Amino acid sequence: MLMTAREYINSLRKLELNLYLLGDKVENWVDHPIIRPSINAIAMTYKVAHEPENSALASVDSSLSGEKVNKFNALFLSTDDLVKKVKLQRILGQRTACCFQRCVGMDGINAVFSTTYEIDQKYGTEYHQRFKKWLSYVQQNDLCVAGAMTDVKGNRGVPPMQQADRDMFVHVVERSSDGIIIRGAKAHQTGAANSHELLIMPTLRIREGEEDYAVSCAVPSDAKGVTLIYGRQSCDTRKLEGGDIDVGNYNFGGQEVLIILDDVFVPWDRVFVCGEIDYSIVLVERFAAYHRQSYGGCKAGIGDVLIGASASMADYNGVRKAAHIRDKIGEMIHLAETIHSCGLACSYEGWRTMAGNYQSNTLLANVCKLNVTRFPYELCRLAEDIAGGLLVTTPSERDFRHPVIGKYIEKYLKGVPGVPAEARYRMLTLIHAMTFGLTAPSYRTESMHGAGSPQAQKIMIERETDMEYKQKVARSISGVDDRENVLD
Amino acid sequence: MLMTAREYINSLRKLELNLYLLGDKVENWVDHPIIRPSINAIAMTYKVAHEPENSALASVDSSLSGEKVNKFNALFLSTDDLVKKVKLQRILGQRTACCFQRCVGMDGINAVFSTTYEIDQKYGTEYHQRFKKWLSYVQQNDLCVAGAMTDVKGNRGVPPMQQADRDMFVHVVERSSDGIIIRGAKAHQTGAANSHELLIMPTLRIREGEEDYAVSCAVPSDAKGVTLIYGRQSCDTRKLEGGDIDVGNYNFGGQEVLIILDDVFVPWDRVFVCGEIDYSIVLVERFAAYHRQSYGGCKAGIGDVLIGASASMADYNGVRKAAHIRDKIGEMIHLAETIHSCGLACSYEGWRTMAGNYQSNTLLANVCKLNVTRFPYELCRLAEDIAGGLLVTTPSERDFRHPVIGKYIEKYLKGVPGVPAEARYRMLTLIHAMTFGLTAPSYRTESMHGAGSPQAQKIMIERETDMEYKQKVARSISGVDDRENVLD
Amino acid sequence: MLMTAREYINSLRKLELNLYLLGDKVENWVDHPIIRPSINAIAMTYKVAHEPENSALASVDSSLSGEKVNKFNALFLSTDDLVKKVKLQRILGQRTACCFQRCVGMDGINAVFSTTYEIDQKYGTEYHQRFKKWLSYVQQNDLCVAGAMTDVKGNRGVPPMQQADRDMFVHVVERSSDGIIIRGAKAHQTGAANSHELLIMPTLRIREGEEDYAVSCAVPSDAKGVTLIYGRQSCDTRKLEGGDIDVGNYNFGGQEVLIILDDVFVPWDRVFVCGEIDYSIVLVERFAAYHRQSYGGCKAGIGDVLIGASASMADYNGVRKAAHIRDKIGEMIHLAETIHSCGLACSYEGWRTMAGNYQSNTLLANVCKLNVTRFPYELCRLAEDIAGGLLVTTPSERDFRHPVIGKYIEKYLKGVPGVPAEARYRMLTLIHAMTFGLTAPSYRTESMHGAGSPQAQKIMIERETDMEYKQKVARSISGVDDRENVLD
Amino acid sequence: MLMTAREYINSLRKLELNLYLLGDKVENWVDHPIIRPSINAIAMTYKVAHEPENSALASVDSSLSGEKVNKFNALFLSTDDLVKKVKLQRILGQRTACCFQRCVGMDGINAVFSTTYEIDQKYGTEYHQRFKKWLSYVQQNDLCVAGAMTDVKGNRGVPPMQQADRDMFVHVVERSSDGIIIRGAKAHQTGAANSHELLIMPTLRIREGEEDYAVSCAVPSDAKGVTLIYGRQSCDTRKLEGGDIDVGNYNFGGQEVLIILDDVFVPWDRVFVCGEIDYSIVLVERFAAYHRQSYGGCKAGIGDVLIGASASMADYNGVRKAAHIRDKIGEMIHLAETIHSCGLACSYEGWRTMAGNYQSNTLLANVCKLNVTRFPYELCRLAEDIAGGLLVTTPSERDFRHPVIGKYIEKYLKGVPGVPAEARYRMLTLIHAMTFGLTAPSYRTESMHGAGSPQAQKIMIERETDMEYKQKVARSISGVDDRENVLD
Repeated sequence: MLMTAREYINSLRKLELNLYLLGDKVENWVDHPIIRPSINAIAMTYKVAHEPENSALASVDSSLSGEKVNKFNALFLSTDDLVKKVKLQRILGQRTACCFQRCVGMDGINAVFSTTYEIDQKYGTEYHQRFKKWLSYVQQNDLCVAGAMTDVKGNRGVPPMQQADRDMFVHVVERSSDGIIIRGAKAHQTGAANSHELLIMPTLRIREGEEDYAVSCAVPSDAKGVTLIYGRQSCDTRKLEGGDIDVGNYNFGGQEVLIILDDVFVPWDRVFVCGEIDYSIVLVERFAAYHRQSYGGCKAGIGDVLIGASASMADYNGVRKAAHIRDKIGEMIHLAETIHSCGLACSYEGWRTMAGNYQSNTLLANVCKLNVTRFPYELCRLAEDIAGGLLVTTPSERDFRHPVIGKYIEKYLKGVPGVPAEARYRMLTLIHAMTFGLTAPSYRTESMHGAGSPQAQKIMIERETDMEYKQKVARSISGVDDRENVLD
Repeated sequence: MLMTAREYINSLRKLELNLYLLGDKVENWVDHPIIRPSINAIAMTYKVAHEPENSALASVDSSLSGEKVNKFNALFLSTDDLVKKVKLQRILGQRTACCFQRCVGMDGINAVFSTTYEIDQKYGTEYHQRFKKWLSYVQQNDLCVAGAMTDVKGNRGVPPMQQADRDMFVHVVERSSDGIIIRGAKAHQTGAANSHELLIMPTLRIREGEEDYAVSCAVPSDAKGVTLIYGRQSCDTRKLEGGDIDVGNYNFGGQEVLIILDDVFVPWDRVFVCGEIDYSIVLVERFAAYHRQSYGGCKAGIGDVLIGASASMADYNGVRKAAHIRDKIGEMIHLAETIHSCGLACSYEGWRTMAGNYQSNTLLANVCKLNVTRFPYELCRLAEDIAGGLLVTTPSERDFRHPVIGKYIEKYLKGVPGVPAEARYRMLTLIHAMTFGLTAPSYRTESMHGAGSPQAQKIMIERETDMEYKQKVARSISGVDDRENVLD
Repeated sequence: MLMTAREYINSLRKLELNLYLLGDKVENWVDHPIIRPSINAIAMTYKVAHEPENSALASVDSSLSGEKVNKFNALFLSTDDLVKKVKLQRILGQRTACCFQRCVGMDGINAVFSTTYEIDQKYGTEYHQRFKKWLSYVQQNDLCVAGAMTDVKGNRGVPPMQQADRDMFVHVVERSSDGIIIRGAKAHQTGAANSHELLIMPTLRIREGEEDYAVSCAVPSDAKGVTLIYGRQSCDTRKLEGGDIDVGNYNFGGQEVLIILDDVFVPWDRVFVCGEIDYSIVLVERFAAYHRQSYGGCKAGIGDVLIGASASMADYNGVRKAAHIRDKIGEMIHLAETIHSCGLACSYEGWRTMAGNYQSNTLLANVCKLNVTRFPYELCRLAEDIAGGLLVTTPSERDFRHPVIGKYIEKYLKGVPGVPAEARYRMLTLIHAMTFGLTAPSYRTESMHGAGSPQAQKIMIERETDMEYKQKVARSISGVDDRENVLD
Repeated sequence: MLMTAREYINSLRKLELNLYLLGDKVENWVDHPIIRPSINAIAMTYKVAHEPENSALASVDSSLSGEKVNKFNALFLSTDDLVKKVKLQRILGQRTACCFQRCVGMDGINAVFSTTYEIDQKYGTEYHQRFKKWLSYVQQNDLCVAGAMTDVKGNRGVPPMQQADRDMFVHVVERSSDGIIIRGAKAHQTGAANSHELLIMPTLRIREGEEDYAVSCAVPSDAKGVTLIYGRQSCDTRKLEGGDIDVGNYNFGGQEVLIILDDVFVPWDRVFVCGEIDYSIVLVERFAAYHRQSYGGCKAGIGDVLIGASASMADYNGVRKAAHIRDKIGEMIHLAETIHSCGLACSYEGWRTMAGNYQSNTLLANVCKLNVTRFPYELCRLAEDIAGGLLVTTPSERDFRHPVIGKYIEKYLKGVPGVPAEARYRMLTLIHAMTFGLTAPSYRTESMHGAGSPQAQKIMIERETDMEYKQKVARSISGVDDRENVLD
């Protein structure tokens, strides 16, 4: 089944979330002006699946049911599927200019799918069947799934069992014939309040004696014991002001939530890993490889909007043809396309898991993400250069509409003839939103920390490269080992 | 006279500003929570002048009156004075973590001082005496002066007289025996609403036929015809929320104002340039050389706070000794000190003007500023890396204080034992304020555009270098010209 | 037919080149110690085609004859063919650690193939058939083809016809019923002295009135009127010294030649463009897109050797596990893989020409190359950091073998126990060769200027991007245009 | 006394060096074409001292004798002296375009001067008097002193006493009433074969039990037991070819030597440290702070030549006014001046030692050097971009002079009218020499490793900053500690 955007939004109304925002429990969260843009962003993933020009990217015939399902709930069954994923993500980045949140679930689904298969192979468990059943349910109802991996971690220098408070990592506190009870918290949970289901996954390598921490399961977002606390983001309350300019991006936005799991019961048919410590890191790394690939799509797409906005500001200022402006815009394009190239490369070079779905190339996905921790920042810097100081000194929308001073702003904020001051003002606030404001976390912080901080990528890159071969050819060419004779 | 911080703040209450903020005319602006932190930041320039350990940097015996005056109203009478300026600016950056706004006036005062001297020499005018009289008044009353240079510019591709609207640059619209009437607007006016006086200066090279645009004069900030429109900055309304954490920097902040000059009358004894087109660019470049030097002080000081905050976050997270964290913090220090080194170098290498005050070295001041357009951005990026994703996902202060969910936040936001979650939360919001929020414009946008955008520095660097000598030695060493014989 | 490496080398002996090197006409150039390593590097392209593990990449069933031909003489008939190309290039870069020179021909062949097809379509000419005939001859005999594009250009500020000397660009000086006579010179001709055939192509957009400059044709490298002047490269005469260490890379090297075409006659059946000015730039850009793709293969492969050598030096010095060394090596891998990712992406995203062969994606190929103008330089810098100062202060091979002082060197150049000083010495000279010496032009200068200097890529990137779409989404999201409603 | 350049060169003839080069013992090394340019470069330090326009920088009235002595043998008695040092170094860099080698001695002299004073204060030894006596002798005879610090180090992971071979660090092997006998080797010894005296210093922190390794003393360069082995540098044998173009820089060059100390006797009056382990690191760090300052002079000066050469190439190619060329040249200037600014800043901010001479500011000197490990590489990259591919493909000088092909080169290597091909050729070879060739080690490798590799600077920067103060202000501003009230 493919829900429409409207159906998706209405489906959320049925959830009974225990959600807090700015110190208050929010009842009608679907229509809350701070939250709604983030719902709209996810809704775009539902909308594009119905668009003739995008449906080939955004919908898939399910390998489980044969029915058409949303790409975000689908398995990647070929490298082509992986490529389509990043191309779709780029389009969605262009259409929303922010994080559309549904990738974590998609990437989690694929990682749990292949990992449970291998666990079952080794341990004779039944996780994979359970998971497929749950996934069928998700696909059939076109639910939105939030992948929930990042634990709060407490003291980073110490593993789970040595924490002063053992709840710093989500873990099983009780097992019964019916299911398990879990406790802990997941931080920075992208889109969690806009999702029907939370797919819980461990966050790091679990070692012997830490079996309780090796847990993956699915929890409805309004299950008993689940509390969601909405994260503050830059300029969030501008959405409460009533205007549509100062927010920069009126319709769309990201969402990050702190999920509290206070003794949440999970029945066995929703439990996908429980104690198999050796597969914990497998699951983490597969998810990471997918999600590091993802940024090669969305961050290129968001970058496209920033590039377009910067070029438009240059137009409005009358400097579009200045050599240094052209050079800077050219550089922005170059950086965005480098990110996308890496996203494409790790997709095309993907590999088939034992379970039959495809993984992105681990080395190249990490290379992709490491570039993402750098280039969007330079894109922001260049956009701020091109936009000019007005970016942070512009009057407010209410000043602009003010009977007395509005005319001054209209007069003095004009750029080239033919472009109203308001257009320039709007473009400035969009750039502001992307570099400082409401969606800056989508473009900057997520690029830095999403799917793991840069050091995590450095470590994986070091590990995944074939250094022995590199050293072998160096020894051969230098003559430390026997040199290769081309005539041999 | 040296006012105390308290006296300065009280003195502002006497001003009858025509000031707009968020669509409203503000009456008690001194106590307005959005504005007050910016007043506090300037007040720090008054406070340090009384501190025994800083008075040698922050106060000076006036060359006009012999009396002790605030450094920000003083002339630079030696390279040592220039050095003291940047060292003071670094201290103030450390104490406020934002723009303390008073440098524009200090730099404008020194630029107008030497320029008016030279105009008088050439044209037999009396601007310099007038200016000294005004400056004595400013010094004696320890007034705060806002330097007002940047015109709104309209279509950047076109000079003042070719603009569709001739008011895109401030200009004289009427001359009488009493004085002149000026019209136009000055954008991004740092600290203008916290100043007693506005020192108007032209913004670019004025050409023949544009004599009306070559105008410099002093205008009280509450003069008839002056309207101030407060610029929005990231997260500005967090100051209205009542808490003291989410703002990040509760006490201090910057300020940018759009000044409308709607036919403002200026008596002749406050007019310092009026039609001398050939000195317009002299004034602009002298101001720019001073102000590009200034950033070698303040931005290093603000950087120190960001470095300290990043190191503290690493402490709280338990990763302070991780090699990659140490490397990143080392890099941050390196970048901040490179900026400061450039600020020091252009100060030590200053030169004496005909009027007797000292200018920073033009080439090196531009080099300083060009680094400032880059390095703070990298410092922000590294700080965001070290801080972690919580930077943009942390709950609000009201959640933290909430009777039901507060305990969850307390529990799950803790880092290493011994450090309360609140400390970690506070440090995060400080870093957030500096990189995204309230004071990010002070550290990012000002670094980019203050005292001219990077391309302006590139052009000056190209112009100020002795390229002919560089090519001469290249020709000599290559043998294109006769080679130098060391035995000759 | 597939020649072996030995057959290739012997086939060169039959050529009667008019070749000058260091001021002398060289007779037995095949065995000349300065030249031979560059022949060996090309020979590797012949060798790998016979290797079972590489033949799938290195040989192809010809679409012209159905017979197996070398990849370097083949047409790219699918995106998969393009991908195989860059993967093969990476392997060859790893095996030779330098430029193996044969790509220019391969890329030229493919560009001329599709361009001649389109010229014929438009003008009813027969170039394409002629070209296929010539290509069949090349494939059948497994000849080595040098693509010859770059004219010497004279005054870069001025087009061909305004040059003081009209011969600054290769052009037709005479036409007859038998053929044409061409004059001019082609600079930086990679591998020209190791090739059987020169494939001449124009170097820039040709305009009306410059018809004589729109010329592409094939010339045997030993044709009458062709003079080849061997370019000097760093440390070239070390190959004459007799040892095998100080050269760094004893077996392999690059080659750059200045080709003089002094009234060379070309029969019509070897002429592929002659006066069709509108296709000149098509040919140039298709070649450029191929060759900018190529660097995503070879330069990653050469980088692998440099990474392996750096890691080995770190081993030998006993610092392999130091955090900063690991970080630097990780960075080197990251940069090399970013280059390769771009090479892969532009290959996978290739497109079919009217003639049926495939072009790499133009935008992404330019992005690839622009990264190549930057990252190898940083790889060199990091390698020099890791290698240590000994890189440029090490004694000579003859000192090492010297009866008196050899023992000192043996003693004092040792690193960790178990590794002989000579191994360390050899690894140093390899790194030296790649960063300063014999093969540094292959890795640095070619990366910068091969297939066009960085500014050429900047221009293409600006042109190839869909800026209108980027601006459209920016206008939509900012509300300058109507905003997209996700519910519509 | 001030020797002339000629006198200096003649004075070298009296030395009986045991010097090896390319496997041969060299007798008349002063006139050896490979060595002579390096002697000329040092000779320039003698020449400038006699030039009226430079004598104020290049000569000093000795604080020991009152007589005029060369700056390179003088003590720095004020921050002004430190500033003059870097300004002189910049001039010498401009005049030689390479390393003029005499700074190591100057910096060593000043470091040993202050350290011996403090050792004597603590231990009642007489090192300082001895050192002053030796320094007077050096000053009086205007000798050239090579500072010899860097040990060969063997396994970098292990301290001196744990090395498989204890001679990896220079140490005392015997003590007698007459003096000491030392053994070991010093690597990368800049200018050692052009110096009269070697000033031996330890290379790292010496710990208890390693007393024999804490040794500093002066040894004549031709003392018994001293063997000098000349290091190979890129393109060194081009100097033997007879021409004057292909070398790039015909008159000047650097020099790096491996010094073998095979049981060299040193009388007590030349011994300045012997076993005082706690001062070993003091001496090392003082030397390092001086030498890291030095690079803020010379590398800016060498950069000037590269900038001039690049601009000249752009002139010759007819592209000097192209926006991207201007931007790149502007960037080169910016980077060179940033280096120089850091060199100036650490000089102006110097401090007085107990012995009365002045040290550069340690933190800023390290910041200076860390920039030097980066920016010259980018300057080279930009120069290579501007120069064009001809940099590594140009024919040889002998081709250029060849009766048959010379005319082709003359014709086809021309750029803009009015500039002979030879001028362009010469400028190319100069850029080649600085980026790949003979003097590239002076500009690249020395910048990287001279005075310690980049990681050494990172560590010092981390240590020298006042992090506690940075964290204090961060705690205060964030409210973790009490916030500063500006009204207090």
